[in-house]
This record gives sequence, structure tokens and C-alpha cells, in this order.
Amino acid sequence: MKKTYLDHAASTSLCTQAFEVLIKASEKAYANPSSIHEAGRNLEQKIHQYRQLILDSLGLKHCDDYGLIFTSSATESNNMVILNSPQKKEVLYCEADHPSITEPAQSLCNANNSLKKYDLNEVALLDSAKIKSACTTKNPLILLTHVNNLSGSLSDIETIASELKTTFSDCRIHIDAAQSFGKFAIDLSAKTIDSVSLCAHKMGGPKGIAALVYKKSSSLKPLMYGGGQENSLRPSTLSFPLIASWAAAVSSLDQNRMKEKINAVTELRSSLKKELLTHFPQIKFPFDEQKTSAYILTFIHPDIPSDVLVRLLSERGVYVSSSSACSTRAPKFNPKFAALGIDSSFHKNVLRVSFSSHTTKNDINEFIETFKQVTEQLKASHV
Amino acid sequence: MKKTYLDHAASTSLCTQAFEVLIKASEKAYANPSSIHEAGRNLEQKIHQYRQLILDSLGLKHCDDYGLIFTSSATESNNMVILNSPQKKEVLYCEADHPSITEPAQSLCNANNSLKKYDLNEVALLDSAKIKSACTTKNPLILLTHVNNLSGSLSDIETIASELKTTFSDCRIHIDAAQSFGKFAIDLSAKTIDSVSLCAHKMGGPKGIAALVYKKSSSLKPLMYGGGQENSLRPSTLSFPLIASWAAAVSSLDQNRMKEKINAVTELRSSLKKELLTHFPQIKFPFDEQKTSAYILTFIHPDIPSDVLVRLLSERGVYVSSSSACSTRAPKFNPKFAALGIDSSFHKNVLRVSFSSHTTKNDINEFIETFKQVTEQLKASHV
Repeated sequence: MKKTYLDHAASTSLCTQAFEVLIKASEKAYANPSSIHEAGRNLEQKIHQYRQLILDSLGLKHCDDYGLIFTSSATESNNMVILNSPQKKEVLYCEADHPSITEPAQSLCNANNSLKKYDLNEVALLDSAKIKSACTTKNPLILLTHVNNLSGSLSDIETIASELKTTFSDCRIHIDAAQSFGKFAIDLSAKTIDSVSLCAHKMGGPKGIAALVYKKSSSLKPLMYGGGQENSLRPSTLSFPLIASWAAAVSSLDQNRMKEKINAVTELRSSLKKELLTHFPQIKFPFDEQKTSAYILTFIHPDIPSDVLVRLLSERGVYVSSSSACSTRAPKFNPKFAALGIDSSFHKNVLRVSFSSHTTKNDINEFIETFKQVTEQLKASHV
Repeated sequence: MKKTYLDHAASTSLCTQAFEVLIKASEKAYANPSSIHEAGRNLEQKIHQYRQLILDSLGLKHCDDYGLIFTSSATESNNMVILNSPQKKEVLYCEADHPSITEPAQSLCNANNSLKKYDLNEVALLDSAKIKSACTTKNPLILLTHVNNLSGSLSDIETIASELKTTFSDCRIHIDAAQSFGKFAIDLSAKTIDSVSLCAHKMGGPKGIAALVYKKSSSLKPLMYGGGQENSLRPSTLSFPLIASWAAAVSSLDQNRMKEKINAVTELRSSLKKELLTHFPQIKFPFDEQKTSAYILTFIHPDIPSDVLVRLLSERGVYVSSSSACSTRAPKFNPKFAALGIDSSFHKNVLRVSFSSHTTKNDINEFIETFKQVTEQLKASHV
């Protein structure tokens, strides 16, 4: 059976460059980068270059104010920033954020932190006025998501950060860029953003490696102790093969290449939306195409639960998502969908289709044909 | 220049099976194991099998009392157990342990925990009487190392655990088996051991994956929050390629194969020791061969600092270690060497040579020849 994978926002394939480097490095570069002999030191030097390559891609060329530590996941990077925020510091987050933001934030409730939720605006985007109105102190930690994993909502984080810093000059701004890094430009050169979580496996790199980029002046603390790697902020033997592979994926992308890819994916998404509307006029698109990542199309079939659709599509080799892969056991009322402005009567009907630059018009056709078959099958079984 | 890598205790190469599986899985198995479609579920089922495979290898076939969560490193596994030990619980560790044990333990000082150090016996092995004498409560958390990373000291953890549980039935025993897993049998079937940290990259698996095996009845808590993976104990997208690759390394080993490898490595180590003694009668071997891992030979050249030896050997393509790769900036007095019974006048002279089952007699000859050249060079430069 032909397989049509349209769940790239959950995880995507390794790009060719990343795959080739992973093979080569896994075979040959097995020394420990902390070892002081030449085999270790060579790897450490290369890791230093890869670190700089990723920082450069964030508009930080020739800027010494930011550091980068490699972590095992964007989840770990988010947790590092949130769990180690000082006691009594006000922490602001949005219910629509990924669980790796909301759950560590909520865990702070026991630690004398003042936890505040802010709302998104009416089109599910970050809105500095709404965030400011939720603030009650001058130096909060503000958690922002660049691209929401459920809706694809794409906020202008640079502008939002600058607006927030104008009012709260001592606030600390953290960006979860797991869904956006490598797809949309991120520019830290204005130095208004204090830290960013990046993820490899959603942009063509391997699973098991991620990063936290942070302003060196911020008082970052480790989540764990040992060995002294990563400026004593993140112990564990560095995985040279994973880091080198991710760096290959990053170096294959510049802003022009990212724009080309966005254009191609935008076209596919438009054609999918058009086809869906033609064949299923009852389908709703809760999010504005102009304000979401072109890599994600979220829609609602009001008559069929999304879990049923995911299962039946899967049985026919078409893979999509009913919500984040990280919260698959979502209940009937989903506070994340509510925060994104989706009426609660449709929370069990939200389907997410997500693309990569390797997605083709054939994949879209396959999806549409299978979607037709599945809905026909359901209609027939209800007769 | 020919390279002779004899630093396998810091990190070793992928075994053939692990390498082949890593390539295949990295190319094809890119779905997110948390996704509820078939592509995700298939990977999740396989991960479940790999989990069981590793548990089986620890004598836990048909035993439901233990769970296994995948982590990013043995350092993370050790931290999970130590940092989340309840406040006011007594924690016992040994100064000779790896920094991923001693540093999180020492960080507890601020958290009302009662931290105690225990000594090793006169041959640098765990000794239940010495551990008991350091205990002042009935239910401490006791941290034990199976194979010490500096000396290779190989303790009988099963017997020690049973002796400790006889006296302190409510104590919790954690084993750091990063250096031993896959090389020496570990048997948890007596259920006296509460948790064990395992590492992939020191036994032929990839870097970036490790595990914590734990008694389900122990109240394990997460170090971070998000997504719900690993029974909500360890969030982050599971890296199927890394897990499958490690599982391939584990499945290639049974106890007979491990014994064969130990025998081969024992012979190489004996020949290296004999050659060293023949050519350098001043060299000291602080640890008893019968009581150390055959994969490690630690020795002292009383006249030459080990850092100098590591550097000069490295310049000639021979890679060994002067101490753990995880604590390369060791000062003149090294409390770990002191705890292992090495006289402080030799702390800057400790060299560690470590082997894998792929090490050959040629590697040993190369080491000896290069060691002779290096010492001659030093002698000449001092004339």
C-alpha cells in the first residue's frame, strides 16, 4: 500500500545532507568530544563551528551576546528556562502553547511563582497588548510561541518582543521556536529576545538533538549536574553525529531557500484547501491562511470526529494528526483549542495536515481521494 | 598517520549491528512514535519490544516489577534519581563516583538532604560494611557504581545490594552501570536494586540515548514536564532510530558473548601490562587486575605528568585518557583518585588505557612503541 505521510509537524524525515553526515559521523567520529586527545579535540572544534553556524542563522553573526547549548529536545530547552526561573518571578504563558511550555509553567504553581495566562488575539496570534494586560510585575518571564503546533499560527515574535521590552524593559522573553526553526526566519539581532528553543527533528535533522540559545547575561541554571560540558549548563557526552547531522540540515538552508520552500508549500496548501472546499463544503477552516505557517493546514469536519478520520485514513496509508502527537489523549474539551478560539462543540473534530518541502501534488491528490473514500465509507455504514 | 584509539571507556564505536539499524531507521522510520496513526503506532510497538529486550538482558524476563524509560544520557538518568529524592532523605555516595553522581548529590546540600560519603575498601571496591557505617537513617538513598570509570574497579553490586537491604530494608539502591552495561552481566532478578542507569554509547550503541531502569514501586518523579511520553516521567519525542540502534547492540550480546569478549580483552590487557613492566619498571599499577574491568588499565608513570603523556601520544596518533573525559580540567589534588586510594603525589600521573572488543594485539604493540618513543623524546629534551 502506498503511504502518504502528512504529519510533518509531528516529525519529518532527515534531509539528504543530514542523512549523509549522520552516516559518516556515526561510522568514524566516535570519540568523546570532551577527551583532551586530538580525536576528541577535533570533534569539539567542529561542534564549536556548528554552534556558531546555528547562531549565525538567527541573525547573530559577529554577536557575542548569545550562547547556544545543545540539549536532547526542545522540551528540555523549554523546561530549562521555565523550571529554573527564580522563585516569586511572575511567569506568563498561553494555554495554547505546547505542553512542554504549559506543563512546566503549571508545575511552578508550587514554588511561589506567580503564574499568569495571557490570551491570543481574535485571529489566534500573539498580541502585545493582551500580554501586557496580563502582567502585574515589571520583570516577568514571558513565554511566546513562534508557530503554534496545532493551528500553525505564525506570530511576528520580533515585533512582539520589542513592544514588550518597551513597556517592561526588565522582562525576560523566551521563544518556543520548535515548529518554526528552519522554516521561517528568526532574527535575534535586536537583542530583545532572551532565549529560544530550537528543534532538529522538525526541520530535517535527527531526533535526540535540540538547542537552547540564550543571552549570556541571563542567569541560566542547569537542570542537571555532572561532567561540566556546555559551560556546566548541560552535562552529558555531546553526540557529535547528531550535532553534525543537524548542522548539515541548517547549512543547507538560507533565507532564500526557506522562502522558495514556503512558496511551494503555500501552493500545495491552497490547492488542498480548494479541493476540500469543493468536495466538502461543510468543512471549516478556523485559521486565516495569511496568518499561519504554510506547512500546516488545520480544519474541522463538523460531522466526523477527528480520531475516527485519523484512524480510517491511517488504515488506508494516509497519515495525519488529530491534535499534537504530544497530547494524543486529549479529552472532549481541549483548553488548547479553546485558547485558539475554536468553539468547544468542534474540539473533537480538529484535523491537522502538515507538509514538508518534499510533499508533492500527488500526496495532496492521494489525501483528497482517500478522504473521499473514508467519508463515503462512513456514510455507507450509517445508512 | 595510523590512529590507535585506546579511550573506549570515554566513548566507543558503533557495533556493526547498531550502525546498520541506525542507517535504516534514520532513513525510513521518521514518524513520531507518539502519533496515533499506523506509522507512529508501529514505531511505538517496536520501542516497547526494545524496552523489554533491555529489561530481559538484566535478568528481568517475566518480571513486571521494573520499568524502563529512555533518557538522553546516563548522566540524565543519574540526575533523575538523585535530584528528585525526597527532601530530608539521607543520600550516600562515594567521592570516586562519576561527576554525574557526585555533582547532583552535592547539589542536594541546599535542599535539607543529609548527604553522606562512604569509603571504598583497601582495593577500591564497594564494601557493604563501610557503606553501612556511613548510614545514620533506616531508609537512605544509596548510590553505587558498578564499574568505576577511572580505575575500572568492578564491584559485586548484587551481593552488596543484598547485604545493604538485609540491614536497611527500606533503603533505596541506585546503580550507575554506565561503564558496565553490555560488558558485564547485571542481574536485577533478586529485586534488591531499585534503579540502574544504562548507557548506549559506551557499549556499541549511539550517543544521545540511555535509560533508567526503575522499580515501579519507587516514587520516581520527572526532571521535566510536557507531552506525557514515558509514563509522564520523561517528555520529548522518542528517537526511534537511536533506540532501535541501541537495541541492536544489546541484542547482539548474550552472557556467553560477553564472556568471550572479556577473555579476549583480558589477554590484551595482560600483555600490555607485561610489556609496560618490562620496558618501564618504574610504572605502578594501583589497581588489582582481578578486581577491575578487563576493559580498563590504569597506571602511573611517576616521572611524567599524564597530561604530557596524553598530549605527546596524541601527537603520534595514540589516544588515551589522563582521567575521565567528563572532568578533564582536574586540579593537582584529585579527590576521586584519593577516594580510589591513589597517593596524592601521583594524582597528576594517572593514565587510563581502555579497550573494546575490537582492540587488537597490533593496537597494543603500537601503544608500546609510541610510549617508548614519547618517553625517549622527553628524556632527550631534558638532557
